Amino acid sequence: MADFVNSLLPSPLCDGAAALASERGRSKLPEEELACHLFGESGRLERQERVLPVVMREPLFVKGNQMNLSRPDRYQLGLRRAKRLRQLVDELGWDEEDYGVARYLVDDMLPYDLHLSMFLTTLRQQASDEQQAQWLRPAEQCRIIGAYAQTELGHGSNVQGIETVAMWDPSTREFILHSPYVTASKWWIGGLGRTANHAAVVAQLLLPRLTGSPTTKPKYVSHGCHVFVVQIRDLQTHRPLKGIVIGDIGPKLGYASMDNGYMLFDHYRVPHSAMLSRLSRVNPETGDYEKAANNALVYGSLTYARTHIIRGTSLVLARAVTIAVRYTAIRRQFPDRDAIDPRSEPEVVVLDYPTVQIRVLPMLAAAFAVHYTGKAMHDLYSRATNDASNAALANVHGTSSGLKSYCTELTAGGLETCRRAMGGHGFSADSGFVQFENDFLSKPTVEGDNWMITQQASAYLIKKATNVLGASNEQIQDSLSRSLKSFLLNKTPLFEVNHDDHAIVAAFHHRTSFLTFQAHEQRVVKKRRWNTLLIQLHKLSNAYSQAMLVENFYSALHSGNALTPPLGDNLRKLFRLFSLYIMDQNALEFVTSSAVSFEQVSALPDTIQSLMAEIRVHAVTLVDAWKIPDYLLNSCLGRHDGKVYEHLFDRAHRQNPLNGVTFNPNYWDHEIVKAQEEEVCQERSGKL
Amino acid sequence: MADFVNSLLPSPLCDGAAALASERGRSKLPEEELACHLFGESGRLERQERVLPVVMREPLFVKGNQMNLSRPDRYQLGLRRAKRLRQLVDELGWDEEDYGVARYLVDDMLPYDLHLSMFLTTLRQQASDEQQAQWLRPAEQCRIIGAYAQTELGHGSNVQGIETVAMWDPSTREFILHSPYVTASKWWIGGLGRTANHAAVVAQLLLPRLTGSPTTKPKYVSHGCHVFVVQIRDLQTHRPLKGIVIGDIGPKLGYASMDNGYMLFDHYRVPHSAMLSRLSRVNPETGDYEKAANNALVYGSLTYARTHIIRGTSLVLARAVTIAVRYTAIRRQFPDRDAIDPRSEPEVVVLDYPTVQIRVLPMLAAAFAVHYTGKAMHDLYSRATNDASNAALANVHGTSSGLKSYCTELTAGGLETCRRAMGGHGFSADSGFVQFENDFLSKPTVEGDNWMITQQASAYLIKKATNVLGASNEQIQDSLSRSLKSFLLNKTPLFEVNHDDHAIVAAFHHRTSFLTFQAHEQRVVKKRRWNTLLIQLHKLSNAYSQAMLVENFYSALHSGNALTPPLGDNLRKLFRLFSLYIMDQNALEFVTSSAVSFEQVSALPDTIQSLMAEIRVHAVTLVDAWKIPDYLLNSCLGRHDGKVYEHLFDRAHRQNPLNGVTFNPNYWDHEIVKAQEEEVCQERSGKL
Repeated sequence: MADFVNSLLPSPLCDGAAALASERGRSKLPEEELACHLFGESGRLERQERVLPVVMREPLFVKGNQMNLSRPDRYQLGLRRAKRLRQLVDELGWDEEDYGVARYLVDDMLPYDLHLSMFLTTLRQQASDEQQAQWLRPAEQCRIIGAYAQTELGHGSNVQGIETVAMWDPSTREFILHSPYVTASKWWIGGLGRTANHAAVVAQLLLPRLTGSPTTKPKYVSHGCHVFVVQIRDLQTHRPLKGIVIGDIGPKLGYASMDNGYMLFDHYRVPHSAMLSRLSRVNPETGDYEKAANNALVYGSLTYARTHIIRGTSLVLARAVTIAVRYTAIRRQFPDRDAIDPRSEPEVVVLDYPTVQIRVLPMLAAAFAVHYTGKAMHDLYSRATNDASNAALANVHGTSSGLKSYCTELTAGGLETCRRAMGGHGFSADSGFVQFENDFLSKPTVEGDNWMITQQASAYLIKKATNVLGASNEQIQDSLSRSLKSFLLNKTPLFEVNHDDHAIVAAFHHRTSFLTFQAHEQRVVKKRRWNTLLIQLHKLSNAYSQAMLVENFYSALHSGNALTPPLGDNLRKLFRLFSLYIMDQNALEFVTSSAVSFEQVSALPDTIQSLMAEIRVHAVTLVDAWKIPDYLLNSCLGRHDGKVYEHLFDRAHRQNPLNGVTFNPNYWDHEIVKAQEEEVCQERSGKL
Repeated sequence: MADFVNSLLPSPLCDGAAALASERGRSKLPEEELACHLFGESGRLERQERVLPVVMREPLFVKGNQMNLSRPDRYQLGLRRAKRLRQLVDELGWDEEDYGVARYLVDDMLPYDLHLSMFLTTLRQQASDEQQAQWLRPAEQCRIIGAYAQTELGHGSNVQGIETVAMWDPSTREFILHSPYVTASKWWIGGLGRTANHAAVVAQLLLPRLTGSPTTKPKYVSHGCHVFVVQIRDLQTHRPLKGIVIGDIGPKLGYASMDNGYMLFDHYRVPHSAMLSRLSRVNPETGDYEKAANNALVYGSLTYARTHIIRGTSLVLARAVTIAVRYTAIRRQFPDRDAIDPRSEPEVVVLDYPTVQIRVLPMLAAAFAVHYTGKAMHDLYSRATNDASNAALANVHGTSSGLKSYCTELTAGGLETCRRAMGGHGFSADSGFVQFENDFLSKPTVEGDNWMITQQASAYLIKKATNVLGASNEQIQDSLSRSLKSFLLNKTPLFEVNHDDHAIVAAFHHRTSFLTFQAHEQRVVKKRRWNTLLIQLHKLSNAYSQAMLVENFYSALHSGNALTPPLGDNLRKLFRLFSLYIMDQNALEFVTSSAVSFEQVSALPDTIQSLMAEIRVHAVTLVDAWKIPDYLLNSCLGRHDGKVYEHLFDRAHRQNPLNGVTFNPNYWDHEIVKAQEEEVCQERSGKL
């Protein structure tokens, strides 16, 4: 039978290699120019080319079988990968960016991840010089592995509600870490469950208040949350230290290889030096609380995390559309029912159906939109941290909150839309979507829940509106304020979005201004309760984020190096597709705000369909240019060579461990079933 | 430490049991009357009460650890469960509905599922009496296990494109089953991969055409797809028979316990009796193709499957909202920023935030909407199959296609929306959403892809429009035609949806009629190509499905047994919430079609928010009444007793196998790492 199976080819109309070759032949789009336009400055592609072969030849980084593993085996694989990656840093002298690219390609949540990000960042930002001398070097060299233990079972986003306490004992000059409730258990802490031997623990600092009599128990006063660096496991046995309870919280939607953990303290004593004291400290002599600086740095780290997520999101979307575009350019389904003789026609390539285009192509355009905005956010963040003015920090904080929410929401929806656009095979792990999508689905919740943090963008906008209303023309300097001011001067402009790209940008700003002043009216003028306005504020934040995406997309095409006409023309079509698609989804708001006329809004679906038909010709080249390697895609459907069916079959027939086992399907004879199944188990353990 | 851990309670403000008790105390809604209103006639709740304890005491049906298993172990557990469930049928004399409830409670894709549904149905509908005598009895008794092998690697929905052939050899009176291409491999076939020993194979029937000379090879002519029942594995060794290649296709997004399989034939010979011959046959003497009857039955089976999916979907939504409502009624986050002293206030219960309500409560209302429509579809299906008129069959076919698409899309989105509304803990497998949601995500694609089958609803509507345009008033008899006719008579009615429930129903019908005649204009009058209209046709189908949901919801509250006022009032609020929420999402279409005025549509968000505030008070009772047992929910977050945090901690601390293993986190000394990890592996295999 092996000869028979090996001799089989795909049927001629299912020849994916030929299909993609023909797609690439048809498009005259300059793929290399586009790749350079996207990544040229960053040197990212050269780095990827250098790191990729190193990663691919490591047996631990082969991805084929990982979906078959048990959760404990999956964690163990993740830990081994984390270690091997760190070994490669030593062996090859990789810098931080090399490591980042390798980590991206290996594409697994690694038990070292939070150590390398949050634990190190916390030490760098909040540890005093003496504390850095003690911990930073060993931590940077991974001689100790730390977790960042903030979130608790009962409290996530609201840090003020944290229940873990650190009580100062002046008699021994120690802090007593304690978890008074089960809900005080640290929870979700990445790398804590099985890996870390240290932790940065966020706890309420309690200082005793002097009472009249020395014999009565002291009363404690909270001074808010502070960070304590604590050794949590024995460095030899790796068992939790006495007084500390630790474990892994169990399986999740994604993150199988990550040991998100829990931790409880039973009156666990740590020395005075445990409390990170760059920003504030307890005077060991007097027991007084001393504040050293403001919290701008801590605030900046959340903004940084959101900026970082926005930036990473474009590659997530690009990866999804790379797979979906290639596969739907190969898959055929049903002959055209208007053909003269449908039975003699080849079936239609599914990407030619407008109902497939409307799901995949706007997401292709969105990948570009998010890419440009990721870059713009990164620049904004850099300028704001250099500048460090309150205005700049408020801008980057508000904008990054809105954009993190909107971009991750858009992307999470886009992944699932692309997966479903691939029909049945999209449900298979061979699509490359299963772990990828499940891991990404953490993003709408982490670093501030998407429906909560939009308040921060809206609050920023309302404040701006208040300022603009009270300001003279000369006092208005930033572009957001100018945009709000120009709205006040001309409330019914009805932009001509069908023929003018800049009018599209203006229409998005106009609608945002309209919604901003509407929210201002409710909150500031009518003084309505904040919580009753939350839905409206969420919509406002999304409108603002959309305006940012549209503006940054437009700017990227109208500044910097000129693009050759075929590339420029097609990127402008992508700009229009993205903008008008979003406008169509929110059509009523554009009409209500007098940004666009009812007639123009009604014409959007036809315009969008025409744009998609034009872009569809170049779809394969437009995804190729992102240069996402097959190794990362880990997808039979999205392979660059188009050999979809050959590889689907190969994975099932030659790489599926379940096929090494024979089972007894008969239900009726309990004893025999049992005996045979045991035999089967033994057979299996030898084979797997 | 055990004493310390055991002594811990949730902090007073995280006391879920108290929170739910207070919710239940506040609502005066009669839970039992509502349960009876939902399920009274069906006897479903009594059956559930009888079957649940039986299922719960079976060790194989304990669900706690299943998320930790490897894929092979997960399949093996599924097979054992399938067998045990079938043993219980014998032991307890369960009827089909008892089995159905038990299968629903065990809540796992079982390797016997497709045997018990598609394989048996195929035999019943398409096997001749002699063939039924041979196979039906052993199949019903599970003495043989069959798979239904239709879909192929290269072809799904378009059955005409199937590549597997069955060539008639007149000399031996056998069919030769053959897979000419790798894309001809049967694929996705449930229960085939490791379980089945028989299969109903769909193949192109090829009959030789007589050529002039007896020495030349015969040419074959296809007579379309037919079904062949074939033994595929040895009944003793369970190995595939010679000439047949079989295996499991590998991991998927969901369905871990199901062995979706592939199968190839290498000139495999089966006797004449293999071809199911109730509907058509090959005359064994002459080799002629003989058609016995029409295909209405086969057509009916697809419609039945879609009707069945629609009906099951309401319990899926209800399960999701049960978990989300209970948990968000317990979880608190942030004090009210407008409180006089926010720091001294308890944090707000998250279900009190409109931004949580707008995600969860419309889905609660949708569960009711889908429930009533599922019942109505079931009745429509029963009447149509009794009636068997072409008009009735076309109606049930068109309507079930549109509703299957819309309801599964709504539900798939609703599950993810509910999951995310629960914030961080929604990402944990302890939410009860992970397997549940991943398994359900097959539904938008199976039994006709959701974006493809909407064409069938739209084609039905366009045909109706054509008929209505040419018909006199007397010729118009069914309600859809009446609704289309009344639109023609009054195109600008602008219904008053704010004060009149029946006007809401009329507005939905009016919009559907508007879109129907618009599509009719494009396709029938202007003769535009079908494929260019697909997006418009998809929207039309959705509008029609929404109108059905709204109408059936309205009818269910205005017919049958009268509801007591508190129940009736609140169900009418749910009706309005569902309808107006859908209207708001599609506002522009309602305005464009003159169904509702711009002013009324603009007021919808405020109306929806007020409705939600009224329904929120009864939310917990409204989900309790669905009587979804904790055993099915398998969720720490959604438990009836509200003990969320106690059980989250218990699962992690006492039931997570990963916590039985100690790993070496150090990367630097390869040899030691290796030695220690092996030790760890041994330790583990003893523990797990």
